[in-house]
Amino acid sequence: MNIEFPLRGIIPPVVSPLLSDNELDEAGLEGLLQHLLKGGVHALFLLGTTGEACSLPYQLREKLIHRACAIIDKRVPVMVGITDTSFHDSIEMAHVCKEAGADMVVVAPPYYYPLAEIEMLRYLDDLVPKLPMPFLLYNIPSHTKLHLSIDAVKHARELGAVGYKDSSGDMLYLMQLIDQFKEHPDFSVITGTEMFIPENIRHGGHGAIAGGANLFPRLFVEFYNAAVEGDEEKIESLRQIVLKIYNTIYNIGTFGSRYTVGTKSALASLRICNDYVAHPLRKFEGKEKEAIDKHVNTILEMWSAHEKKFEMAEK
Amino acid sequence: MNIEFPLRGIIPPVVSPLLSDNELDEAGLEGLLQHLLKGGVHALFLLGTTGEACSLPYQLREKLIHRACAIIDKRVPVMVGITDTSFHDSIEMAHVCKEAGADMVVVAPPYYYPLAEIEMLRYLDDLVPKLPMPFLLYNIPSHTKLHLSIDAVKHARELGAVGYKDSSGDMLYLMQLIDQFKEHPDFSVITGTEMFIPENIRHGGHGAIAGGANLFPRLFVEFYNAAVEGDEEKIESLRQIVLKIYNTIYNIGTFGSRYTVGTKSALASLRICNDYVAHPLRKFEGKEKEAIDKHVNTILEMWSAHEKKFEMAEK
Amino acid sequence: MNIEFPLRGIIPPVVSPLLSDNELDEAGLEGLLQHLLKGGVHALFLLGTTGEACSLPYQLREKLIHRACAIIDKRVPVMVGITDTSFHDSIEMAHVCKEAGADMVVVAPPYYYPLAEIEMLRYLDDLVPKLPMPFLLYNIPSHTKLHLSIDAVKHARELGAVGYKDSSGDMLYLMQLIDQFKEHPDFSVITGTEMFIPENIRHGGHGAIAGGANLFPRLFVEFYNAAVEGDEEKIESLRQIVLKIYNTIYNIGTFGSRYTVGTKSALASLRICNDYVAHPLRKFEGKEKEAIDKHVNTILEMWSAHEKKFEMAEK
Amino acid sequence: MNIEFPLRGIIPPVVSPLLSDNELDEAGLEGLLQHLLKGGVHALFLLGTTGEACSLPYQLREKLIHRACAIIDKRVPVMVGITDTSFHDSIEMAHVCKEAGADMVVVAPPYYYPLAEIEMLRYLDDLVPKLPMPFLLYNIPSHTKLHLSIDAVKHARELGAVGYKDSSGDMLYLMQLIDQFKEHPDFSVITGTEMFIPENIRHGGHGAIAGGANLFPRLFVEFYNAAVEGDEEKIESLRQIVLKIYNTIYNIGTFGSRYTVGTKSALASLRICNDYVAHPLRKFEGKEKEAIDKHVNTILEMWSAHEKKFEMAEK
Repeated sequence: MNIEFPLRGIIPPVVSPLLSDNELDEAGLEGLLQHLLKGGVHALFLLGTTGEACSLPYQLREKLIHRACAIIDKRVPVMVGITDTSFHDSIEMAHVCKEAGADMVVVAPPYYYPLAEIEMLRYLDDLVPKLPMPFLLYNIPSHTKLHLSIDAVKHARELGAVGYKDSSGDMLYLMQLIDQFKEHPDFSVITGTEMFIPENIRHGGHGAIAGGANLFPRLFVEFYNAAVEGDEEKIESLRQIVLKIYNTIYNIGTFGSRYTVGTKSALASLRICNDYVAHPLRKFEGKEKEAIDKHVNTILEMWSAHEKKFEMAEK
Repeated sequence: MNIEFPLRGIIPPVVSPLLSDNELDEAGLEGLLQHLLKGGVHALFLLGTTGEACSLPYQLREKLIHRACAIIDKRVPVMVGITDTSFHDSIEMAHVCKEAGADMVVVAPPYYYPLAEIEMLRYLDDLVPKLPMPFLLYNIPSHTKLHLSIDAVKHARELGAVGYKDSSGDMLYLMQLIDQFKEHPDFSVITGTEMFIPENIRHGGHGAIAGGANLFPRLFVEFYNAAVEGDEEKIESLRQIVLKIYNTIYNIGTFGSRYTVGTKSALASLRICNDYVAHPLRKFEGKEKEAIDKHVNTILEMWSAHEKKFEMAEK
Repeated sequence: MNIEFPLRGIIPPVVSPLLSDNELDEAGLEGLLQHLLKGGVHALFLLGTTGEACSLPYQLREKLIHRACAIIDKRVPVMVGITDTSFHDSIEMAHVCKEAGADMVVVAPPYYYPLAEIEMLRYLDDLVPKLPMPFLLYNIPSHTKLHLSIDAVKHARELGAVGYKDSSGDMLYLMQLIDQFKEHPDFSVITGTEMFIPENIRHGGHGAIAGGANLFPRLFVEFYNAAVEGDEEKIESLRQIVLKIYNTIYNIGTFGSRYTVGTKSALASLRICNDYVAHPLRKFEGKEKEAIDKHVNTILEMWSAHEKKFEMAEK
Repeated sequence: MNIEFPLRGIIPPVVSPLLSDNELDEAGLEGLLQHLLKGGVHALFLLGTTGEACSLPYQLREKLIHRACAIIDKRVPVMVGITDTSFHDSIEMAHVCKEAGADMVVVAPPYYYPLAEIEMLRYLDDLVPKLPMPFLLYNIPSHTKLHLSIDAVKHARELGAVGYKDSSGDMLYLMQLIDQFKEHPDFSVITGTEMFIPENIRHGGHGAIAGGANLFPRLFVEFYNAAVEGDEEKIESLRQIVLKIYNTIYNIGTFGSRYTVGTKSALASLRICNDYVAHPLRKFEGKEKEAIDKHVNTILEMWSAHEKKFEMAEK
């Protein structure tokens, strides 16, 4: 596949459907990927935080990469998270990705030792030459304990990074970041905060790794398209739906993991895949599950109302 | 082996000697273990934070467990860290430990997702019944992002934990902890802060997982013995040496990893094993290495002076 | 004065011009206030974080309130920060404000003891009935150690708060906040992050307490107006200038106080007032001062270019 | 008064008895001070964190300093906290102390702006020459957001500091600190963590600013004396009582302020002074107050049992 740079658009961090801690929900994976491709997403990101990468046994990760790449079959670019606390196993996983036909890997800081930024840069210096394909850098300080500075991102770009995913949630940082990479139009600045899609596009960024796109891929693609077109009315209408997703599906209970668990639970409500969540997280049951079912319906209704309104307008 | 509970004494978190990220320094491992056993340590802890467990590929971890257990050959109890972000692979590793002849496993919170304490307790509820041998709980909030409360430790004990290693560095917490477990004399309270050995023993705790014991096992065993005997003069004399280790070998540069890297570097100065440190950490070179060489000599001299003084006294 | 609610627009957190820790730069204060009023700002906020309120002796604060209110002379609404670690002195200061003719007070959490949110709510329950005029709530967790939840803001509104200033820098929180107050159209949601002015207005917020408006009041008023009008081209052009302010004037050195000190230093470059900064902060000198002088010129040039471009366009 | 350096012993951070936010409980103050002096404390510290200094109006602070110094009447050295966010008002307060006859002042970092350590050092450079009497430096990072390094303490000593109070709760830091000041035998290292009294003395420190000494001054003086004498049995017996104080009186509810509020509440249980707590804190009532009453009795009984045991032993 000929990938165009900069990467743009909606890139779902694909949920990893499971039957148990060590068993893939293969039918669910196929159903989910078809759902995403049908929704028009621009690329796919396997084995990210939403994909519970770190919670999956290695062999399951490998199997998932192979199965997913086979199903996707080069219809969209595929990137795969290889971050690991073991340098050697990260590189091994990158070679698995190569063999399976993935297009890019995604690298975040190793997440056990608290690292200084300079330690991370030296790590990249050693890692990147060993990677068999292009990479994106990934910032998620809430999990890795390291917030990458803009200078660190510049260093990664010089080493060959084709893009950067920022999940810090810090919009001011995102704005400054975009500003600093204006001279490098092939470098993608991708937000991990799906509410920021319009702002990211407006200010010169390129897209989003949007967990909610697992559930409603077409909604997020429309949100992105509206942002690219600067259609403020449509942006606002869709933004209200995305905000509702935050305030409902992502907001059950108080655990930091509620976003990940809520997304998987809602996929089951939509009958797309199983909702088993690997340890140490735990799937919603009882009242929490009922709340998810109800919230999914609310979102579907809001979206349906949105579509009617804008279809009419377009006629 | 018949292990006596509560576990007591000096338990080095064994450094993992390496030739590269994926290659064990087998001669170094043998040399190090003989050095530790000869030093009189009471038990050994493989694959902890000092042992760079998370940085090692799985197969290397397995190899290290087997080799080490074979060398130790039941002379002292062996515990092995199995903490992993993958629940399934943690349990697999516990079975490897069983097969290799280890005696106990050590469990810290999975370290990618920021967990609530209740999520950790449920995780233990599911993990413990699957473990083929006794376990200790391990608190290291600087790395896992979760500081376990005393109630969490009580829960672990009820599930069968035989002890607790606290690396929070919080002495007040340690004192309160010891107080809360007085009714359970078989449960070990072990500090991960080697400076706290005399306090831990004095207040009713049981020992230390002391990284510095890799370097100077007999010194730490003497420190422990002096604490058990309440020999204040000897405690103070040894405490000065341990404090010097902190202020020199553990204190090169400013990285959070300086303790781990400094220990391995000093082992090479002592010609015990190779100083290769797995990514993302990096071994000391140049001036930093020279400083370590010098500091090791200083410590050896202080210790020699201490021994002369107390030998004379004993005559 | 008849104040219209919700408060809207650009509200500079007025810099406090000083000759020394205990001496007001009276000419500077007059010059600064005339500069701000001439710039068309919508209201003024005395004694905020930018105004170094906490660093000023009480009598100086009182003098500043009286002098400023006299100069402003009801031309725009005046709000005054009364936050203090002493409850009694906060209320006293509110009465000074009343006497001087100010219109509103601004209340943030007392900032010595680390407070739980419920302690802050009870504090408001007791404080608000004693205030002689309307109040706004102020969130600045980096300084007060307490990040107010949306529920806390709702509680403040029920107690009578007319608005809320958020300086958390968290855009996602700001969006959720605006959404939650849609049913209360008289309640102002004001951002303390001046880069967020267009987003705040677009999403339904009301304005900004913008430190940079001390320097370039008209620029910020135009930025606000462009946001209200949805003039995307003008917004983007002005946004580039504001971004430059962040990357230059607010970005000298590494101290957390560089924003406050840089603003005051730039006011001196513009010959508006003295640049003395009260302890514990310290004014820029030497190379830092020269950098500020240069940066101020850069901003003036950018702004001049912007104005030419848009004036031509309007002809 | 001729003060001997280094300062040593038990120095209660005197609770400030109040009738309301702006009214001193004068009888309570007199009763409390007599209680403390009768208990044999070595010095007194007015207007610290336990004394709610920041919550008191200035005039009340001044009144309290004058009244307290008059009551104490040079029987023991008096130090007074002058920390303030206003540099000028800090110095004014130091002069009030001088006039009232206090002996030393205590200085912590100004606590509104998040400061870099170098900003704090420059602040001391400017403050110290203006102080009319000796000073101690005070580290309380949980409240001031700045943890002073050992180098910062050395700088303060060079400027003339006669001692250092550390309330970080970090024992390892305390040990390293003591070690670094061994060459300066006139400089006091005082812990703010009363559980650490034996450790502080054993390792070469000088005493404690112990909040619990407000309640049980003689108990803490005995604890200190036992530590100085190295009477391990007595230390351990008293340590159990102090630990019980932590687990009961200091441990009602979950607020960070529970230690301060619990201490004042227990003083009322002992009928020593009023339990009014200034805003933003709030006194215990109902079940919390009852729990305090009960806990005070438990402590008194434990202490009585301790005394009987050791008196018999001494006969």
